[in-house]
Amino acid sequence: MLDAFFSPASVAVIGASREETKLGYAVMRNLVTCGYPGQLFPINPKADEILGHKAYPSVLAVPDPIDLAVLVIPYQFVPGALRECAQKGVPAAVIISAGFREAGREGVEREREVIAIAKGGGIRIIGPNVLGVIDTHTPLNATFAAGMPPAAPIAFMSQSGALGTAILDLSLGGGLIGFSKFVSLGNKADVSEIDLLEAWADDPASRVILAYSEGLPNGQQFIDVARRVTRNKPVVALKSGVTSAGSRAVSSHTGSLAGSEQAYRAAFQQAGVLRAENLEALFDIAQAFAYQPLAPGDRVAIVTNAGGPGILATDALEHAGLKLSRLAPETVRMLTGFLPDAASAYNPVDVLGDARADRYAFALEKVLADANVDAVLVILTPQAMTEIEATADLIGKQAVGQSAKPVLACFMGAARIQAGIDVLTRHRIPNYPFPERAVEALEAMSRYRAIRARPLPEYTRADVDSAKVTEVFAQARAEGRVALGDMEARQVAEAYGLRVPASRLAATADEAVEAARAMGFPVVLKIASPDILHKTDIGGVKVNLTNPGDVRDAFDLIVYRAQRYEPDARIWGCQVQAMAPKGLEVLVGMNRDPQFGPLVTFGLGGVLVETLKDVTFRIAPFSRHEAGEMLSEIRAHALLDGVRGGPPSDKAAIIDALLRVGQLVTDFPEIVEMDINPLVVYEPGQGATGIDVRMILKEIG
Amino acid sequence: MLDAFFSPASVAVIGASREETKLGYAVMRNLVTCGYPGQLFPINPKADEILGHKAYPSVLAVPDPIDLAVLVIPYQFVPGALRECAQKGVPAAVIISAGFREAGREGVEREREVIAIAKGGGIRIIGPNVLGVIDTHTPLNATFAAGMPPAAPIAFMSQSGALGTAILDLSLGGGLIGFSKFVSLGNKADVSEIDLLEAWADDPASRVILAYSEGLPNGQQFIDVARRVTRNKPVVALKSGVTSAGSRAVSSHTGSLAGSEQAYRAAFQQAGVLRAENLEALFDIAQAFAYQPLAPGDRVAIVTNAGGPGILATDALEHAGLKLSRLAPETVRMLTGFLPDAASAYNPVDVLGDARADRYAFALEKVLADANVDAVLVILTPQAMTEIEATADLIGKQAVGQSAKPVLACFMGAARIQAGIDVLTRHRIPNYPFPERAVEALEAMSRYRAIRARPLPEYTRADVDSAKVTEVFAQARAEGRVALGDMEARQVAEAYGLRVPASRLAATADEAVEAARAMGFPVVLKIASPDILHKTDIGGVKVNLTNPGDVRDAFDLIVYRAQRYEPDARIWGCQVQAMAPKGLEVLVGMNRDPQFGPLVTFGLGGVLVETLKDVTFRIAPFSRHEAGEMLSEIRAHALLDGVRGGPPSDKAAIIDALLRVGQLVTDFPEIVEMDINPLVVYEPGQGATGIDVRMILKEIG
Repeated sequence: MLDAFFSPASVAVIGASREETKLGYAVMRNLVTCGYPGQLFPINPKADEILGHKAYPSVLAVPDPIDLAVLVIPYQFVPGALRECAQKGVPAAVIISAGFREAGREGVEREREVIAIAKGGGIRIIGPNVLGVIDTHTPLNATFAAGMPPAAPIAFMSQSGALGTAILDLSLGGGLIGFSKFVSLGNKADVSEIDLLEAWADDPASRVILAYSEGLPNGQQFIDVARRVTRNKPVVALKSGVTSAGSRAVSSHTGSLAGSEQAYRAAFQQAGVLRAENLEALFDIAQAFAYQPLAPGDRVAIVTNAGGPGILATDALEHAGLKLSRLAPETVRMLTGFLPDAASAYNPVDVLGDARADRYAFALEKVLADANVDAVLVILTPQAMTEIEATADLIGKQAVGQSAKPVLACFMGAARIQAGIDVLTRHRIPNYPFPERAVEALEAMSRYRAIRARPLPEYTRADVDSAKVTEVFAQARAEGRVALGDMEARQVAEAYGLRVPASRLAATADEAVEAARAMGFPVVLKIASPDILHKTDIGGVKVNLTNPGDVRDAFDLIVYRAQRYEPDARIWGCQVQAMAPKGLEVLVGMNRDPQFGPLVTFGLGGVLVETLKDVTFRIAPFSRHEAGEMLSEIRAHALLDGVRGGPPSDKAAIIDALLRVGQLVTDFPEIVEMDINPLVVYEPGQGATGIDVRMILKEIG
Repeated sequence: MLDAFFSPASVAVIGASREETKLGYAVMRNLVTCGYPGQLFPINPKADEILGHKAYPSVLAVPDPIDLAVLVIPYQFVPGALRECAQKGVPAAVIISAGFREAGREGVEREREVIAIAKGGGIRIIGPNVLGVIDTHTPLNATFAAGMPPAAPIAFMSQSGALGTAILDLSLGGGLIGFSKFVSLGNKADVSEIDLLEAWADDPASRVILAYSEGLPNGQQFIDVARRVTRNKPVVALKSGVTSAGSRAVSSHTGSLAGSEQAYRAAFQQAGVLRAENLEALFDIAQAFAYQPLAPGDRVAIVTNAGGPGILATDALEHAGLKLSRLAPETVRMLTGFLPDAASAYNPVDVLGDARADRYAFALEKVLADANVDAVLVILTPQAMTEIEATADLIGKQAVGQSAKPVLACFMGAARIQAGIDVLTRHRIPNYPFPERAVEALEAMSRYRAIRARPLPEYTRADVDSAKVTEVFAQARAEGRVALGDMEARQVAEAYGLRVPASRLAATADEAVEAARAMGFPVVLKIASPDILHKTDIGGVKVNLTNPGDVRDAFDLIVYRAQRYEPDARIWGCQVQAMAPKGLEVLVGMNRDPQFGPLVTFGLGGVLVETLKDVTFRIAPFSRHEAGEMLSEIRAHALLDGVRGGPPSDKAAIIDALLRVGQLVTDFPEIVEMDINPLVVYEPGQGATGIDVRMILKEIG
């Protein structure tokens, strides 16, 4: 669908130039020198010929069809040129020109105009404000960057063109970084990360997809698409602007909506997108996926000629949640037989500082053949006897001789080591300068294996009474309120099958006593006011009232306090509520993220955990499996199973509550915020009761 | 004191060889080619001359004094050679030879013999099992490594020699990594990290000290020495073997005691030692300290020609707890006047993709002059117009032209960028390939500034009754017990001024009722048995007993349960305890680390926080200031100040309790474990009461 961008039969460069300092020259030069095999049409009304290609005054003057137009002209000429492309029937355009959304209010207007022309003319757009597009397979280099990157099974999209130039320069440094496709996305007026993910999912030239992104406006669609693509091949993303300072920097940069860190974390998790911690990790991880098979499991063997780095690698493995392989007795026996006495035949296998290439080769062969080993990390330090290049060569041959288990290298040093790294590069063995970075790549492989193994999400719908919810919301709206009253919020929760304690509104102390008698002591009294959200904070809740006298006292006290603290609040009286038995207090909540929509929260309830912020998030809708994952993601998850003689909790009931809340907030986009805190959870089979339910609707502006 | 190792007037190489494959040749070659200016005596009974130096059959045959002996002979000849060194009066020896402690039980014996000879002969020893010693100032290269590292104000000690070879090779790769002194410590039979810290504290050639360590046997002494040294210059350490798998790998490597991760974290914190996350970070941080002034504050300005990397740097700054400088209006005005319209004159300062060197120079000059800026990070991507080398040169001149604020660079790429990095290297500006790594170095500078600013610890002693404690312990010992009874533990706590509730031992239900009446209801009953440590787990505690009937029931139930669960336990009856009012429950505990001694724990009490493991540690003795730091280090620290209308807690009382526990476990090394859980803390001025005190003494074996 986006083929015209990557393997066009013909390219027109609008703004092609003969002046070497112009970007229009750089684009032409790149197209020519990369060996682009299609037709090339420089468009320049003042030239007859550029770099050996006949120039035309406009695309309309070109006699043949044009698959791709590359625009390298000042922004004020872009609309006109694009109109001509539409007239000519050009299906795809890369707009390198800047001066659009990134340039303030007028630029936003200009970008709108460009989008309208493109839509009307059926033109797909990459840009504006980009470095360009590269396909090393075609080959096509429609960028103004210096040089063509080496071909490699890595597809890369970058929202930042400048960052792209740095990465392209990095790829020209002689290592294993290279690209199948490279796209600078810029302002994403049309083609976005989502389109490229779809286009690259089945691209045989790309084994891994990388993305640098500053914002993902269509969050839900991104999740849907990425979830499918990531079952097929790994997607690794670096999201910037994740901190509040960073997101201010983003908005002054390209005007992306930064989105909340929590929402991104949840979205990438649900989409199966691996998140790189930083730019270095993005490319460290990419090389492992690009050149090595996916490890069948988490058990890693280390072969090293140095104890210290072996220990560092072991530490890193444990930190990453990977396992040190327990070598089979037969492997240990063979290693013991071959290696000197002082060597370690256990994992990490220490071939000793005086190891020549033969020891490495023997050890690597044996651990690769061991069924207890899923991946191998070979560490080498340049000691007196070390045969650096010969060892690299034998490692390469061993690794290539099998295709089931990844082999990563960590040749440490620079001066003597470089020749060995070059040999590894020829064998397509990624080398990491320090063991921790190799382990980070193995960790990403392990995470990806888990992503592939997990079930496809199945969304189930519970049977609910949505008409009742519509009615409650309409009533609140009619009264001009966005914050639901306690009673209303509980009605909504009940309509969606969430259990709440028996409750009645009492306008007077007498009514409260009557209600308490009817539902049985002990009871709880809470202030009933649409204007008071945090009842506890103003002393508006009294619990464990065991007799009529206490209920009467509590009613008067609560109403008095409410009037004193919030003189303007409408006070309906008190809510009398059956006192729920004690259980584990958890929290289920939701707020709406501008990019991803309903972000559902789970965590332990109560003041302590609020302080600890021990919570996790998912974007609704989510599956039962995903709700289950939330329970195990909080730090205090062991509490759910009961600790120190405490009872276990009804996890199924929590999952059910999460799913019902997810369904409610998906069905009713007007709910902008809600929480059930605490949701008191009982022993397995006994369910959970939402003690306090808060809900806020969208302001109608 | 260790001068003989680094600037000896004469060196004897015992085992010097003419065979190029021998280590004894490599050491001689390094000493000769590094330009060592002193006298050089090869010791080899079978040679007359080696590499132009007259050889001697033994050190005893050398006519002149010998400052340093380097032993490169098989382990079986080491004792004899060392005896001759003693006889000759050689003050220092580097034992390169392996085959000692790292080689198993017999090796341990051999190492003991070596230590005895050295002690007897007054010889200081580095090693055995090392790569050797380098001093680039002397110059002296007494290692068998390939080549001499460049001189740089970085002193490095490595427990692993193999790791040392990798780092030396790295230093020969053309960057800014180099060394003033380099020591491979090996088995640390004599000279340890502690000795080198002391020796290097005042070394004018070393601005920063780096250590790679697998274990620190004399933990308390390390803290004492490092605490003094780190006030003078930064010490950055990488400790390996921090995970359980890693520490098993250590013990199979050099047999170091790995020590617990918590103890190391506390020790480094107390000592002011900066901890590197990994080997790469160790050298990233070292370069910033070595070549740039310490930042006077945490406010960082970013100058960049690329928005994306600027955002990544901003994210990293916020993650690291650093601040983005708010530029002065005058700075913004000047930048706005000079830079193009589309540039950002706010921080990050975006000089735009087409910036030539002049824009960088102008922007850097202005932000360096801004009083709101403490440090500058200059990011450069190789775009079409970028003047990479000229920009690097101007950055270098700007940075060198002032000496108050650090300037770090992040030139991103490889092929075109390398020439610029070489220019930066000439100007001694550290370059980091990715922004996050530069920020990590700035973060280390910030942490070091805080370390220098903190007060020197003052140890105060409270007035306590240690005789009483001695008496209680003697009684327990006399009865053959190591676990103190509830009553005993409380007596010990009281003797050290820790408040505990009134309590009496009741052997019968009648005595329990009588005790309860005497101290007033409500009361708590707990099983009284020296054999039952976790009373709650067996249902051995009943709280809130409000009347004689309940006390009687509780007594019978508790004793029945205890007998049922632990039929062999000695049961003394029940402890009747005044019920303490409610307050915030915290935990104060101690266990003894084999390397660092008493490790005191602070955290919130109760089952929830036990699950969350929200605790922090200090090694006793510690100061009042350090105890105060503990309170703010737990994740839930906000609870101590009161949240959601809850009352604040008496922090002074917690600090006092921590100090008294610290004093107790320092005074009585026989306490191997203790905890007060919960320590119930009341509002400020109301103190804290230790509800349950457990204490275990060392087994006498």
